[in-house]
Amino acid sequence: MSGSWHGGAAAVVTLGFDVDAETPILARGGRYAAHASTMSHQAYGPDVGLPRILDLLDEMEVPATFFVPGWVAEHRPGLAASIVERGHEVAHHSYAHRPPTSMTPAEERADFVRALEVFAGQGIEIVGYRAALWEASWLTAELVAEHGLRYDSSLMGDDRPYRVGTAAGEIMELPVHWSLDDWEQYAFLPEPHVGSVIESPRKVLELWRAELDGMRRYRCLFNLCVHPFLSGRPGRALALREFIEYARGCGDVAFARCRDVAEAAFADPEVGVRPHRPPQVDPAVHPH
Amino acid sequence: MSGSWHGGAAAVVTLGFDVDAETPILARGGRYAAHASTMSHQAYGPDVGLPRILDLLDEMEVPATFFVPGWVAEHRPGLAASIVERGHEVAHHSYAHRPPTSMTPAEERADFVRALEVFAGQGIEIVGYRAALWEASWLTAELVAEHGLRYDSSLMGDDRPYRVGTAAGEIMELPVHWSLDDWEQYAFLPEPHVGSVIESPRKVLELWRAELDGMRRYRCLFNLCVHPFLSGRPGRALALREFIEYARGCGDVAFARCRDVAEAAFADPEVGVRPHRPPQVDPAVHPH
Amino acid sequence: MSGSWHGGAAAVVTLGFDVDAETPILARGGRYAAHASTMSHQAYGPDVGLPRILDLLDEMEVPATFFVPGWVAEHRPGLAASIVERGHEVAHHSYAHRPPTSMTPAEERADFVRALEVFAGQGIEIVGYRAALWEASWLTAELVAEHGLRYDSSLMGDDRPYRVGTAAGEIMELPVHWSLDDWEQYAFLPEPHVGSVIESPRKVLELWRAELDGMRRYRCLFNLCVHPFLSGRPGRALALREFIEYARGCGDVAFARCRDVAEAAFADPEVGVRPHRPPQVDPAVHPH
Amino acid sequence: MSGSWHGGAAAVVTLGFDVDAETPILARGGRYAAHASTMSHQAYGPDVGLPRILDLLDEMEVPATFFVPGWVAEHRPGLAASIVERGHEVAHHSYAHRPPTSMTPAEERADFVRALEVFAGQGIEIVGYRAALWEASWLTAELVAEHGLRYDSSLMGDDRPYRVGTAAGEIMELPVHWSLDDWEQYAFLPEPHVGSVIESPRKVLELWRAELDGMRRYRCLFNLCVHPFLSGRPGRALALREFIEYARGCGDVAFARCRDVAEAAFADPEVGVRPHRPPQVDPAVHPH
Repeated sequence: MSGSWHGGAAAVVTLGFDVDAETPILARGGRYAAHASTMSHQAYGPDVGLPRILDLLDEMEVPATFFVPGWVAEHRPGLAASIVERGHEVAHHSYAHRPPTSMTPAEERADFVRALEVFAGQGIEIVGYRAALWEASWLTAELVAEHGLRYDSSLMGDDRPYRVGTAAGEIMELPVHWSLDDWEQYAFLPEPHVGSVIESPRKVLELWRAELDGMRRYRCLFNLCVHPFLSGRPGRALALREFIEYARGCGDVAFARCRDVAEAAFADPEVGVRPHRPPQVDPAVHPH
Repeated sequence: MSGSWHGGAAAVVTLGFDVDAETPILARGGRYAAHASTMSHQAYGPDVGLPRILDLLDEMEVPATFFVPGWVAEHRPGLAASIVERGHEVAHHSYAHRPPTSMTPAEERADFVRALEVFAGQGIEIVGYRAALWEASWLTAELVAEHGLRYDSSLMGDDRPYRVGTAAGEIMELPVHWSLDDWEQYAFLPEPHVGSVIESPRKVLELWRAELDGMRRYRCLFNLCVHPFLSGRPGRALALREFIEYARGCGDVAFARCRDVAEAAFADPEVGVRPHRPPQVDPAVHPH
Repeated sequence: MSGSWHGGAAAVVTLGFDVDAETPILARGGRYAAHASTMSHQAYGPDVGLPRILDLLDEMEVPATFFVPGWVAEHRPGLAASIVERGHEVAHHSYAHRPPTSMTPAEERADFVRALEVFAGQGIEIVGYRAALWEASWLTAELVAEHGLRYDSSLMGDDRPYRVGTAAGEIMELPVHWSLDDWEQYAFLPEPHVGSVIESPRKVLELWRAELDGMRRYRCLFNLCVHPFLSGRPGRALALREFIEYARGCGDVAFARCRDVAEAAFADPEVGVRPHRPPQVDPAVHPH
Repeated sequence: MSGSWHGGAAAVVTLGFDVDAETPILARGGRYAAHASTMSHQAYGPDVGLPRILDLLDEMEVPATFFVPGWVAEHRPGLAASIVERGHEVAHHSYAHRPPTSMTPAEERADFVRALEVFAGQGIEIVGYRAALWEASWLTAELVAEHGLRYDSSLMGDDRPYRVGTAAGEIMELPVHWSLDDWEQYAFLPEPHVGSVIESPRKVLELWRAELDGMRRYRCLFNLCVHPFLSGRPGRALALREFIEYARGCGDVAFARCRDVAEAAFADPEVGVRPHRPPQVDPAVHPH
């Protein structure tokens, strides 16, 4: 069991924080930079939510992974380093937070490389990637492999780590899922229209606990994705704290950074490969 | 009572699994085949959710019905047979998962026949049909009768089985309802836009229990529709398990495959006919 | 207190059932008549939900008011009479279920009169009106007064009955509210798009109880609006039953038909008038 | 501690009531003035909800702040004065309730000044401002400073008061957040489309309590925003009452008007400045 990706735990929790700041809104339209309230709503993430979360992680003594767009690292120069200093991982979350499926291959590649350059310039070692909006293209995994990164965390083909083969070599996939994202539960903005109803932290905690219990039963990777501008709010931060306490109280749950899970999975021969190719589409059957 | 469709049970539960895989998304646009994350989200259904559900049904010793689009059976050749081998029913769920109301009559007929050919080629006996998105046209029931199938499960005109007369003969309707579908509770995708909020399995369980209790009171058919890519997730699978345990604990609920309910209903003279014809519309009253 | 509209009760409950059948969907587009599943979803209301609700009201011994579009009364000739025979009120709910705000004044008038003619032809006495979608125009109340009806139930200017003056005389308003409508809680259809999430009857019961408790505190009219195609479903019918039991258990709640509340309010000099005229709009301030 | 903005309390609650009446709907289109039901739904706010809330505040002996659009104060001449007479604050909430981000700078300035003139004409002293829809532009704070007001309450850059520097001087920001607004929880209208699901007051209370508990932990400003046309409804008014009782029962929560918090924050040297400038956008990275 100790040679397995989960190290004998019933479930492994990776706490992932997408430090998006203004980028998901600017990716919807650069014109939103003129919306002062909306920009302040996003700036709350790195300015208020992030320090609160870092303190919470210190207090709980759990490691985490922070997915940071290159644009954010560039505009807030000390941010990425301050995360690494606290013992956490910083991972690649695109440069501009534009979904790969909305870009040409050349644009996706340029965006990918530009963020790598930002992190290199700041001395931040990067081994993992997450596509904006989890909207990877079929090129994405190849870019990850080609640039020597070890894992991607954008696909949903399983609830355990799996290998993905690309023309540039094999990478590890740490799959995500919408039900373990705080965006659908908490996000609300009138323009651009984001979200429909703001859920109570109590409901979100209930949802996450139910999924963790299921994952303990099926020995899965609980790959949580939360955003400092959302889950950094006071009541939600307490709910996150309560979730961590619940997971620890289970006694059979391990916490790890994504990079550590990826390496453990590479070392585990039982971690399988999932096919990674587009379905064949007949336009007469499924029009464009 | 033993000659009645319900065999004396207060309510009959048919567990229906729509094994849609990529088809509901490709039916929204073949272009989505380029979205790697979205495709992986759908592939999770047959690849991870389905085996988990089959094991769960084995463990609970309850029979079920799997509605499979012909396209899915064709692209995953062993899938339909593996379901039948476990003692469950495979039923016809269109070829391409395009709603009949979005097709011409000729297109609907061609789609209907193409899936039948796929199943025939795999030696899978088919006696029931369910329209994609439960969006049957007025032709649908006739196609079902004309091709010798015994039942349809796409209409909502009652909460008990009822007979539907067509130009090609009578079929049995096993009615469905949106409140017994996991799609509205769990589905979320940013593009194509699917769903608005992801509910907790606890809420879904509460909803299903309330409906089952109501149906036990009124002696109805609890025709559940869940999707492996949604309810095959760990926490939701446990909720489904808990629902099955709850239903069994009631002591007055029977489980059956759809085909068995259809045959029992044909043999029950008290099962009535519901009219099956479009309302007369005056364009001056209800513009097109 | 006995001379007051509430007869001394802390709150008065009027159970209103909008027997819309196919009309709200056809009002969105006559083309939806070609959607067999959607039509069956709507036909469930008069065919299955309505008889179940009538039995429930008998069992609970509470009177109710049924708002019926003229089109529905015409297409199902015995329906209105069967409601009156059980001791309930039938009220005018437009002919075609098209919102007045979507029609010209001439169209609204023609629709209004046409339904009155249907009811007159069936010997159904009508004293109250409710606009489709609660989307009254400023003409609506005048039409109600002009045709000798006593009350309208489409406005939201208060939570107690109030008088509305029109050029054709005064009518009583029995105000409604979206939070006491089952549509927002339960309705879901993919096309036309109706509703976003299907709530549990438990949540709806919680919502209604909270509002009833508030209304008992402030002595209001609890003017519930439910639809047989929605609340006639088994689990929801039980929730409705539980709500009625709760209200009766309060000991200070009265049940009445809308017409009886309207007459009691006319006889109560303390029931006030609320202004009924459009706000003055300056297009330079609020563009069209 | 007594010299700090919070006066030693674990959290400070400012109860804010946006007395919008018809304006948010007319801002969506002046044509909606023709919708009688919708107008009555909005008029309920000042006519029924507001007096109920004023009585509730009297009973609970807590001060509050009422954000009133100039248009509303003008069309209901005694309204603003009646609020001040009860010991509460009236603040500037635009003239027409059109979001600054939807206006030109000249339009925003004209709207800002016009409301000030209305309040001046009624002898209402104004020291604070809130942008319609919390959609401030980068000009907004400058307008607030330029006209001698002391605070704005439209931004979301923190959960404690913070200083904002402008070309016209410094103002205090009392930040808001969508999760402390009753609009997303309760609002529903079919046209214009507003809201998607109507939540139970019980859920809203749970949400607010969770946030208050979080804010007590992190010593924040609980800046609640409710609307008389929404939270003035009976069941919701009781929930608001229960929230106030809960907050008082905590023993470490203070209630204050916004103006008093702003002055205390100005006097507290530890209240910091947050940058107030638009992010630099490269159109090649984030297209318009």
